[in-house]
Amino acid sequence: MRFAPLPAGLPATVPFIGPEELERRRGVPFAARLGANESAFGPSPLAARAMREAVGQVWKYGDAPSHELTHALADHHRVAPGNILVGEGIDGLLGNLVRLMVAPGDAVVTSDGAYPTFNYHVAGFGGVLHKVPYRDDAEDPEALLERAHATGARLIYLANPDNPMGSWHEGPVIEAMLDRLPPDCLLVLDEAYAEFAPAAAVPRIAADDPRVIRMRTFSKAYGLAGARIGYAMGAPELIAGFARIRNHFGVNRIAQAGALAALADPGWLAHVVAEVAAARDRIAAIAAANGLTALPSATNFVALDTGRDGDHARALIAALAGEGVFARMPGTAPLDRCIRISAAPIHELDVLEDALPRAMDRAG
Amino acid sequence: MRFAPLPAGLPATVPFIGPEELERRRGVPFAARLGANESAFGPSPLAARAMREAVGQVWKYGDAPSHELTHALADHHRVAPGNILVGEGIDGLLGNLVRLMVAPGDAVVTSDGAYPTFNYHVAGFGGVLHKVPYRDDAEDPEALLERAHATGARLIYLANPDNPMGSWHEGPVIEAMLDRLPPDCLLVLDEAYAEFAPAAAVPRIAADDPRVIRMRTFSKAYGLAGARIGYAMGAPELIAGFARIRNHFGVNRIAQAGALAALADPGWLAHVVAEVAAARDRIAAIAAANGLTALPSATNFVALDTGRDGDHARALIAALAGEGVFARMPGTAPLDRCIRISAAPIHELDVLEDALPRAMDRAG
Repeated sequence: MRFAPLPAGLPATVPFIGPEELERRRGVPFAARLGANESAFGPSPLAARAMREAVGQVWKYGDAPSHELTHALADHHRVAPGNILVGEGIDGLLGNLVRLMVAPGDAVVTSDGAYPTFNYHVAGFGGVLHKVPYRDDAEDPEALLERAHATGARLIYLANPDNPMGSWHEGPVIEAMLDRLPPDCLLVLDEAYAEFAPAAAVPRIAADDPRVIRMRTFSKAYGLAGARIGYAMGAPELIAGFARIRNHFGVNRIAQAGALAALADPGWLAHVVAEVAAARDRIAAIAAANGLTALPSATNFVALDTGRDGDHARALIAALAGEGVFARMPGTAPLDRCIRISAAPIHELDVLEDALPRAMDRAG
Repeated sequence: MRFAPLPAGLPATVPFIGPEELERRRGVPFAARLGANESAFGPSPLAARAMREAVGQVWKYGDAPSHELTHALADHHRVAPGNILVGEGIDGLLGNLVRLMVAPGDAVVTSDGAYPTFNYHVAGFGGVLHKVPYRDDAEDPEALLERAHATGARLIYLANPDNPMGSWHEGPVIEAMLDRLPPDCLLVLDEAYAEFAPAAAVPRIAADDPRVIRMRTFSKAYGLAGARIGYAMGAPELIAGFARIRNHFGVNRIAQAGALAALADPGWLAHVVAEVAAARDRIAAIAAANGLTALPSATNFVALDTGRDGDHARALIAALAGEGVFARMPGTAPLDRCIRISAAPIHELDVLEDALPRAMDRAG
């Protein structure tokens, strides 16, 4: 089979293993699903109702510009509809963004251990990825900027708050980065976890600022991961550029209805954010009782420092899986001394509390 | 805004206008939605129920390999799971296929007037599109093969049955094409409408044949256009290649549940196919009463020959829109002497029957 040269040079292996696949390999379902930063608190009941109702219209293609949702998001963020692009989740939007901005051989800068799906897209379109280390368990704006200048990067990826560590920068730190970007370099600000973060962690950036694109999602705080819907915010010229390449009828119609209803229920969002904050405290307490240290988190997960190395953390993840707990961990040192536990309702954290001591014993 | 050179050279205009967008421009909804070959007969009630139930799990990401659905499709087609790839509708699968096979400058062959979204993807990845004319309102295998040899094409696109004309070739015609493909040229066989076609129009091709990839969808006969789910069938090595580039968690979880349930309800599929056949007859009768000639169709739409030219047909489409009927038409001569009407339930065809004489008058 002769693929085009670019994909022919890409790894043939499947890069990401989801919990269902792990369950099939184990032969038993997990008792607690704490690995994918999903929201087991679920979506707003109003969003769930809107989705069930939208099933009656699913024989129709979705509205290509997601008109109603785009306008509702523009109102929500007090920007113009031309600043918003609804897409098939941040994963899909990142793929389109890389395709739009990065030619084969172009430099792209990210942090070593940051979101792997972004790296997958950069490799997939022939970009050359440069990674800088985290600093104090946070992405390092200075190092990112320095490397971007040194390489003439087209994109800098920065998640704020960060996945997988849960750390964050204050808004002004991000704002200050914009003035120091190399020419023709765009800051990709992944704000998937923004709804969980303190207000001070969300930078104030003019909607039409052409130096940054912000990515938001309904997968996390809004509880709609399976619906595959998110959005980008940026300058109109950049947002309009996606129309050259995107799959115009790619957004699920039921997801459009669900997202619209979810956005209109701020009470549910506040409820989830409060539940997540309580769950983070509970995870930290469970961790402390087992000799692990919870790192501060502005997300719906907590990184737990084992105080040891990646081999130990990997053994602990495997032992947790053996106890029926699906969790994940950072992929690179020194972050990989930690395991990552998603916030979840009481029952699933009860499972964690019960399982962790045995998993710790087994991991040695 | 500096895009990468390839997208920078693509048209900035939005290529496709959906019915909701036309309704917003008109300021009134359409009374009959007969332009997008959707199935207003809807999905199986079992599929609808499965989707409403799946809303309860939508906080989880979908299963990346769509394991259950892939296995059910493999059973359905009596092939191996490795022959099947579930994706975000044929539009999404075609985009990934072009990306996997076509490098910038590579030749691709299609028919002049065939599915524009395929052409959009070819342009989007820098392929050079070569178009051959239809012959007797059908795609022309001889001309496609000849042009592919002349250009060293990597892909030949052929829809069977064809959109927008509704014509089809017998299976052996397609099968015979495979032996005459140029080296390293893949036949892209778009079978979006296969469920409506006579059995003789579906070629018999070994599942592992590396010379062809078949595209199927739940958008048409299964009534799930808004769910964005379809699949490709081909040789395992080709199917596995998609794992290098696809958005692994891109398929909506509710869509996975709906497609699985739809596939398990052949009775509903048979019902829809029968309703569509009756609707085609009714459309032909309405056309005849207005001096238009229905072309034979193996799809869920009918091309109506106005006996005049593209300008007239375009005027007729505009006049129908003015009467509340959303319809479309082929984009190039001589196909554009026709308008295209989707099969639909009785009420919507009543609207057509009522509106068409006035639209004919208005179009002159």
